[in-house]
Amino acid sequence: MNIPDLHEPDLAARLQRAVDNKTKPLGSLGRMESLAIRVGLILGSSHPQLREPQMLVCAADHGLAAHGISAYPSDVTWQMVENFLAGGAAVSVLARQHGIGLTVVDCGVNHDFAARKGLVVKKVARGTADALAGPAMSAAQCEQAIGNGRDVVCGLPGNALLLGEMGIGNTSAASMLLARLGGMAVADVTGAGTGLDADAVQRKIDVLRKVLALHGQARAPLDALAAFGGLEIATLVGAVLQAAAERRVIVVDGFIASAAVLVASKLQPPVLQRCVFAHRSGERGHALMLAHLKAEPLLDLGLRLGEGSGAALAWPLLVSACALLREMASFEAAGVSRSESQEPLQT
Amino acid sequence: MNIPDLHEPDLAARLQRAVDNKTKPLGSLGRMESLAIRVGLILGSSHPQLREPQMLVCAADHGLAAHGISAYPSDVTWQMVENFLAGGAAVSVLARQHGIGLTVVDCGVNHDFAARKGLVVKKVARGTADALAGPAMSAAQCEQAIGNGRDVVCGLPGNALLLGEMGIGNTSAASMLLARLGGMAVADVTGAGTGLDADAVQRKIDVLRKVLALHGQARAPLDALAAFGGLEIATLVGAVLQAAAERRVIVVDGFIASAAVLVASKLQPPVLQRCVFAHRSGERGHALMLAHLKAEPLLDLGLRLGEGSGAALAWPLLVSACALLREMASFEAAGVSRSESQEPLQT
Repeated sequence: MNIPDLHEPDLAARLQRAVDNKTKPLGSLGRMESLAIRVGLILGSSHPQLREPQMLVCAADHGLAAHGISAYPSDVTWQMVENFLAGGAAVSVLARQHGIGLTVVDCGVNHDFAARKGLVVKKVARGTADALAGPAMSAAQCEQAIGNGRDVVCGLPGNALLLGEMGIGNTSAASMLLARLGGMAVADVTGAGTGLDADAVQRKIDVLRKVLALHGQARAPLDALAAFGGLEIATLVGAVLQAAAERRVIVVDGFIASAAVLVASKLQPPVLQRCVFAHRSGERGHALMLAHLKAEPLLDLGLRLGEGSGAALAWPLLVSACALLREMASFEAAGVSRSESQEPLQT
Repeated sequence: MNIPDLHEPDLAARLQRAVDNKTKPLGSLGRMESLAIRVGLILGSSHPQLREPQMLVCAADHGLAAHGISAYPSDVTWQMVENFLAGGAAVSVLARQHGIGLTVVDCGVNHDFAARKGLVVKKVARGTADALAGPAMSAAQCEQAIGNGRDVVCGLPGNALLLGEMGIGNTSAASMLLARLGGMAVADVTGAGTGLDADAVQRKIDVLRKVLALHGQARAPLDALAAFGGLEIATLVGAVLQAAAERRVIVVDGFIASAAVLVASKLQPPVLQRCVFAHRSGERGHALMLAHLKAEPLLDLGLRLGEGSGAALAWPLLVSACALLREMASFEAAGVSRSESQEPLQT
């Protein structure tokens, strides 16, 4: 499936004219103006309306976590899934605040969950394999996880997808994907994750360097994804590809979600046209990731929680952008005088 | 009336403990954590709940506008007031989106408005006097406008006040207030306002330099406010003082609203403890203003519209901060394991 370029110059011009004609000085709504135009282009409308936004929180465990790369034990992955579903996690609170549907996907958690509303079980394995011993996933597992992501998004209502994730160890996978696919030094893109101290970050870098060396041949996007993991990132890659194909607005959270977009964009560059980057995370590496993707995020609040929390926090800005485009009066309609540079002033 | 320091170490410690005990890595919600604590301190609660937020848009005209300091004619002030009330301005759209009450105050617009819902007429004069000929306001007018701001806030419901403004020429007043009260060079704090080109900005700086020289003795906060204007800024000063006294959360918009906070804080420094700065405006001078006030704004979206639009855009972040504080589960309640640095892990 090829995702086409969003090349609609007539619509783009119509959106720009609409924005410029609103009762405000030219350009004075700053980044909100380009955001409105981008959402309009994605949804193919000069009066875009976001409907039934869906937060997808993809969760999985990481074999590499056995090597002390995270400040938290792997059990926290399933414990947090329970917390998401019980409504007590940050993303649960924020999704509730903004009326965002919340779907948690077990992409490969090392735990058996009781079935319940809001949980989709698409378990490919009970976590990835240890990437220091071999690839984190087989090619077949990777493909299966991507297919799962596609399937889950197919079944979701609405026209906007917010990306969230949970997986103890997944900043390691994201760092390695960025190092490999972005051609960056691993030390530049490896951070504290959930809260490692400086010594532990150095040990984490050492582990990742070994994993990268072990999988030196894994240079193609899907090979790298399989080599480094994780199952939740692969599921998100499928979700991003599907959402882009359906022209949903994709709201990208932090470092891990961006890594999924990185992989998806290496497969299909036009997915980036469907993305809105919610925030610049406090996690080391995210700023470089965003620069690599030529992405300008909306928020910069030092968040480093993941879960989709940053995407949910930025969500009302997207709603605002559309509301401003649809509801603000034009100069003509409101009877407001234009600036002197646009129209000579009677003095 | 003296505004006391918010010195409640017990509450501050309780808030910090509550934040640290939430199911997330320590500090991982970044600026949202300090925001939650600040709002909790202002409202005097470890379970803060924002109620009935009120946007106050103060409008007035400026005598100095006759000197070509704005890209728009003064008539735009009253035309935009009509637009606010008709629901077609950016701040109208955003206030509607977020359920923020909108009150427009005619503080001194050169126009007679028909009475209607949402409009409060507190007209001190039909605009300020020409500050190149004398002070923009008399001391009595300045005092009257401040009293008006107090009175209007007294009558508003809720526990949060968002500051907005409209007044062709009011970036000039704000620049002069910052230059004088912040001890800065006028060229460093004077920008394009609604959209002057570089030559026009230079002419604006020349005018402001003359006005500053003419009122070289106006160094005390109220003297400077009277000398440079405007009536909407003075009304906002009163609004800020009253809101601070009532321990409302004050959400500060851009350059002009910040100038009102600057004046209020020179009169009563503890008002700053009650303020949340919504955004860093694209208007030249605002970054310096925020640095002078030691303020760290939430958003940085290149907005330079005023009206309160930036305050309204940031508003959901305040709601989120309180919701996270009230609704997120603790580690204990959710049965989530702590990090290895907080608790030894069974390996």
